[in-house]
Amino acid sequence: MSASQAIVGVIMGSQSDWPVMKLACQTLEQLGVAHEARIVSAHRTPDRLSEYAKSARGRGLQVIIAGAGGAAHLPGMTAAMTPLPVLGVPVKSRALKGMDSLLSIVQMPKGVPVGTLAIGEAGAVNAALLAASIIALNDSDVAARLDAYRKAQTDSVGEAPEE
Amino acid sequence: MSASQAIVGVIMGSQSDWPVMKLACQTLEQLGVAHEARIVSAHRTPDRLSEYAKSARGRGLQVIIAGAGGAAHLPGMTAAMTPLPVLGVPVKSRALKGMDSLLSIVQMPKGVPVGTLAIGEAGAVNAALLAASIIALNDSDVAARLDAYRKAQTDSVGEAPEE
Amino acid sequence: MSASQAIVGVIMGSQSDWPVMKLACQTLEQLGVAHEARIVSAHRTPDRLSEYAKSARGRGLQVIIAGAGGAAHLPGMTAAMTPLPVLGVPVKSRALKGMDSLLSIVQMPKGVPVGTLAIGEAGAVNAALLAASIIALNDSDVAARLDAYRKAQTDSVGEAPEE
Amino acid sequence: MSASQAIVGVIMGSQSDWPVMKLACQTLEQLGVAHEARIVSAHRTPDRLSEYAKSARGRGLQVIIAGAGGAAHLPGMTAAMTPLPVLGVPVKSRALKGMDSLLSIVQMPKGVPVGTLAIGEAGAVNAALLAASIIALNDSDVAARLDAYRKAQTDSVGEAPEE
Amino acid sequence: MSASQAIVGVIMGSQSDWPVMKLACQTLEQLGVAHEARIVSAHRTPDRLSEYAKSARGRGLQVIIAGAGGAAHLPGMTAAMTPLPVLGVPVKSRALKGMDSLLSIVQMPKGVPVGTLAIGEAGAVNAALLAASIIALNDSDVAARLDAYRKAQTDSVGEAPEE
Amino acid sequence: MSASQAIVGVIMGSQSDWPVMKLACQTLEQLGVAHEARIVSAHRTPDRLSEYAKSARGRGLQVIIAGAGGAAHLPGMTAAMTPLPVLGVPVKSRALKGMDSLLSIVQMPKGVPVGTLAIGEAGAVNAALLAASIIALNDSDVAARLDAYRKAQTDSVGEAPEE
Amino acid sequence: MSASQAIVGVIMGSQSDWPVMKLACQTLEQLGVAHEARIVSAHRTPDRLSEYAKSARGRGLQVIIAGAGGAAHLPGMTAAMTPLPVLGVPVKSRALKGMDSLLSIVQMPKGVPVGTLAIGEAGAVNAALLAASIIALNDSDVAARLDAYRKAQTDSVGEAPEE
Amino acid sequence: MSASQAIVGVIMGSQSDWPVMKLACQTLEQLGVAHEARIVSAHRTPDRLSEYAKSARGRGLQVIIAGAGGAAHLPGMTAAMTPLPVLGVPVKSRALKGMDSLLSIVQMPKGVPVGTLAIGEAGAVNAALLAASIIALNDSDVAARLDAYRKAQTDSVGEAPEE
Repeated sequence: MSASQAIVGVIMGSQSDWPVMKLACQTLEQLGVAHEARIVSAHRTPDRLSEYAKSARGRGLQVIIAGAGGAAHLPGMTAAMTPLPVLGVPVKSRALKGMDSLLSIVQMPKGVPVGTLAIGEAGAVNAALLAASIIALNDSDVAARLDAYRKAQTDSVGEAPEE
Repeated sequence: MSASQAIVGVIMGSQSDWPVMKLACQTLEQLGVAHEARIVSAHRTPDRLSEYAKSARGRGLQVIIAGAGGAAHLPGMTAAMTPLPVLGVPVKSRALKGMDSLLSIVQMPKGVPVGTLAIGEAGAVNAALLAASIIALNDSDVAARLDAYRKAQTDSVGEAPEE
Repeated sequence: MSASQAIVGVIMGSQSDWPVMKLACQTLEQLGVAHEARIVSAHRTPDRLSEYAKSARGRGLQVIIAGAGGAAHLPGMTAAMTPLPVLGVPVKSRALKGMDSLLSIVQMPKGVPVGTLAIGEAGAVNAALLAASIIALNDSDVAARLDAYRKAQTDSVGEAPEE
Repeated sequence: MSASQAIVGVIMGSQSDWPVMKLACQTLEQLGVAHEARIVSAHRTPDRLSEYAKSARGRGLQVIIAGAGGAAHLPGMTAAMTPLPVLGVPVKSRALKGMDSLLSIVQMPKGVPVGTLAIGEAGAVNAALLAASIIALNDSDVAARLDAYRKAQTDSVGEAPEE
Repeated sequence: MSASQAIVGVIMGSQSDWPVMKLACQTLEQLGVAHEARIVSAHRTPDRLSEYAKSARGRGLQVIIAGAGGAAHLPGMTAAMTPLPVLGVPVKSRALKGMDSLLSIVQMPKGVPVGTLAIGEAGAVNAALLAASIIALNDSDVAARLDAYRKAQTDSVGEAPEE
Repeated sequence: MSASQAIVGVIMGSQSDWPVMKLACQTLEQLGVAHEARIVSAHRTPDRLSEYAKSARGRGLQVIIAGAGGAAHLPGMTAAMTPLPVLGVPVKSRALKGMDSLLSIVQMPKGVPVGTLAIGEAGAVNAALLAASIIALNDSDVAARLDAYRKAQTDSVGEAPEE
Repeated sequence: MSASQAIVGVIMGSQSDWPVMKLACQTLEQLGVAHEARIVSAHRTPDRLSEYAKSARGRGLQVIIAGAGGAAHLPGMTAAMTPLPVLGVPVKSRALKGMDSLLSIVQMPKGVPVGTLAIGEAGAVNAALLAASIIALNDSDVAARLDAYRKAQTDSVGEAPEE
Repeated sequence: MSASQAIVGVIMGSQSDWPVMKLACQTLEQLGVAHEARIVSAHRTPDRLSEYAKSARGRGLQVIIAGAGGAAHLPGMTAAMTPLPVLGVPVKSRALKGMDSLLSIVQMPKGVPVGTLAIGEAGAVNAALLAASIIALNDSDVAARLDAYRKAQTDSVGEAPEE
């Protein structure tokens, strides 16, 4: 985690989400975006959630990435309590493979948006990239690093498949 | 709504859930269970939700019935903030016909239960019946009325289908 | 299993449901709620089911937790034959991962409710917690233990994720 | 309904299933298979179900067709209590369009089979045809009528589509 | 396979279905129902299918059990070419876990029924049991063995779960 | 239908599929591709299907478009009996909205392909366009008309939305 | 549409998406966020899409909202060609009710994110709100208007449901 | 890969699709159809995709087979930029097992078709067979080899299942 003031908050419903959500942190790290990682359970620590969400803007956060699985209420409840952009990562669940997580996060009612990414690891990386693209609107360093990241990604695609 | 102290709280995410949720109230009325109906939006009025859920036991409520649709967070967040039994009614949603509502309510993580009923009107009636069966454990009047309700229901089933 | 008179009955359709359903029993044990565990197959032992369900209230049970998988008829048929509150646990099935179990349990018709929990292990634990919250309405010892359980659960959530 | 001793029993969970299930009766009528139609609700009249299923073979029934919707337990519970072949018709449900009915009927555990037909009206007609094909194994009149029915069906298919 | 004239034909789309479909054969064996097992691929051997289905009644078969996976056309195409009762077993598919197999088999149009069983092994056993119940209508030996099978099954269900 | 020798055969399972499948014919007409339309029911007229599919190449057909709904076996069974390219159109079904049609058509086993298009009207038009693109490989007139069709389609897209 | 330089681009795959997507425009209007609306079809006008996406940043756009239905490729392909944040709105499709649209938009691979909102009208409004929250990070006027919008929304929620 | 001028282009979104897509190449090899294999990512290399699709006809390609997973945009975007027939192979995805891939590929809007094959390996083989059947329309050598392939396939189906 970056030493400077975090501008992206990465939260997750439980320690068990960390193997997925740490990919968001690693990607932010790679792009030089200061961030913090916290466990905030909508169901087990509702007061911590309320405090985290309500203080987020004041503390200098600009984007919140929230990952959760199953009846995943963390992203939506965070969005209910902060005007900051909230991005949701549906973590793959045991029985339903994340379809429950996805629908619980993306199907928010009119008025309280969560920008939802793909189920699982791709979603965690992409939440970081989307957060970075938001930060990049007013931070030309991040914008440059994001451009370089995308260019490298394009360059890394081989011409022909290899055994 | 009954004039005596409510022991069942019927809450819903929006006025648009009322046509479904009023069936819960009507059934409670029929069984003589004192209740109250409130609109409490997890997403648009998170503070009201917090206040409602945290004060519920103290105010004398014994069961909470919560109905919501789409990314339905109301039942689960209520359950996160009260030790009372919480029953969830998935309201049928526009695009996905309540499958999103159902999964958002029923797939709660270990530790915070919501007793979930069927999607839509059957679920609203049944939430009331289940609440009544809980109340009936210590209220012989309600128990007697519930027994009568069930007997009448059985008696009302015709022998042969009619045109 | 507690030596005193059981007030919660935990039933399941087959021995193969026990690895899931024993989590319900362990949780009830932890909360000091007297209970019993029985195998009652709706399809292979319909008479046992009828006898169990019809005698439940008379025997002093207050809540029934029923777990089953696939075309899971045990919770609903139990609810058809007892006025006690019935909680259903959809056990994960082989091919459809419990989606069939869930729909077979939760989509009960108007008039006969089953309070349904999440698919699998989380559902088994939560059925016990919901049963305990019902018992707690008139048993201050259970209420106190449930409050403690919830508090410990909240306290156990770490601040930041760990490797 | 035929005046002679019914050999096919058509049962359904509620009067509201009749518009679908009467297609089964009409098809049996057309094929000259004596039958009866009854409302038997697994959830609201479990004793009637038990009585119906257990007495079916003794009364001379040879096949039972059972239609139900939602958490459709009627076909499976009937099959649990009679050695006769049981055919299930998933009636289209409100929210989930019969997917819940289908899974609740077809996903029976090892040991207690229900021969399941398509959701809705096609399923009701086909249950009758399948019942007739079973009866036809030992009734050459029904066999002849079924052959004629199938031939007429084949002949009725036009060559080219018409406006 | 029984030496006497087969009265139940067990067919499957491919050798790879045998681990599932042999459970149907074993169950028929157990019940003393003469049967045969054949590989008949609707897609790779359509002529064999046509020949098999059209000659089935003449050869003395009374019931056909057809198992297939994915776009499972074998049961339905068999039913299109024989007046005998056809039972379908959806074999679990790789990607979609048998949901495609199930829908391809059960959703037959009006006029051509397939009595469909559960996905996978339970379905294979149950197809045999359902076939036996059909044979039992006119074979008291099979009827007696089926009754005994069901009684033993009931007796085998333990009272309480064991570790 | 074109007077010249048909090179595309448009077949459908029933007259009721015509409102969808005629869009395929109209599109072929528009592109000047000679075609024919026939009702061929896999289930009700299996012999007609066999005859149609086996004679198709000899009669000069180059592509077959097959539309069907529910347990849609027509495209796959046609593909089993002709080496010509077969394109499948899943017609929207009543209960499951074409999801059953889609899976029954697209999930063909290794060895017998059906090129599947979208559910319903879009699929019917697109089957015609895909057939035309195949014909166009060796017919420069059709190629030119298809290019013009695509260009007109591109040109028809307005710049800004209109009320 | 605002007269000043658009900072949010609202694009959609077809004129038929406008009834849904105009809700995004109306919401941006209400919040005083300058925007533009364009029809850009990924499939029918791929060159226009390429031009629009590649020139977006240079033209001063800061966020792109893209709505599309069915195999909805517009949001993802836009995200492939611009470093700006792209928000996706799954428009409800005919057969599959937007489930296809949702999965086509949200399940983006690692490296190219689309922040996805709910299916249909709620998603369109929420895309605008999320875009505004991004703009608000560096525009205190928009931030103030968004705060007011959220406060008014909270205030508009009635206490008790009304007939 | 064949040394002569490729007439079938096999493209895939990423190196990770190769284990599936190489089955398409092997099948084309077996049938003596000259082909090439390339990695073309719709999302990471949109310019390469544009160049590939637009030059395909001019370079002598006659059919394009495109495989991709998740929000699989490669087949559809290729079809948007070439008049050649495009066949799509949904590669099995991690969380949703290829259901997302399937819907993203098959549900193309009116005007731009993709002939879609089964999810995964069967789909890859079948895409090659369908491509070969298209080539065979004007190449009697390929036609003969395809006929032989199909005959061998039929001959390889055993009579009875083996342990």
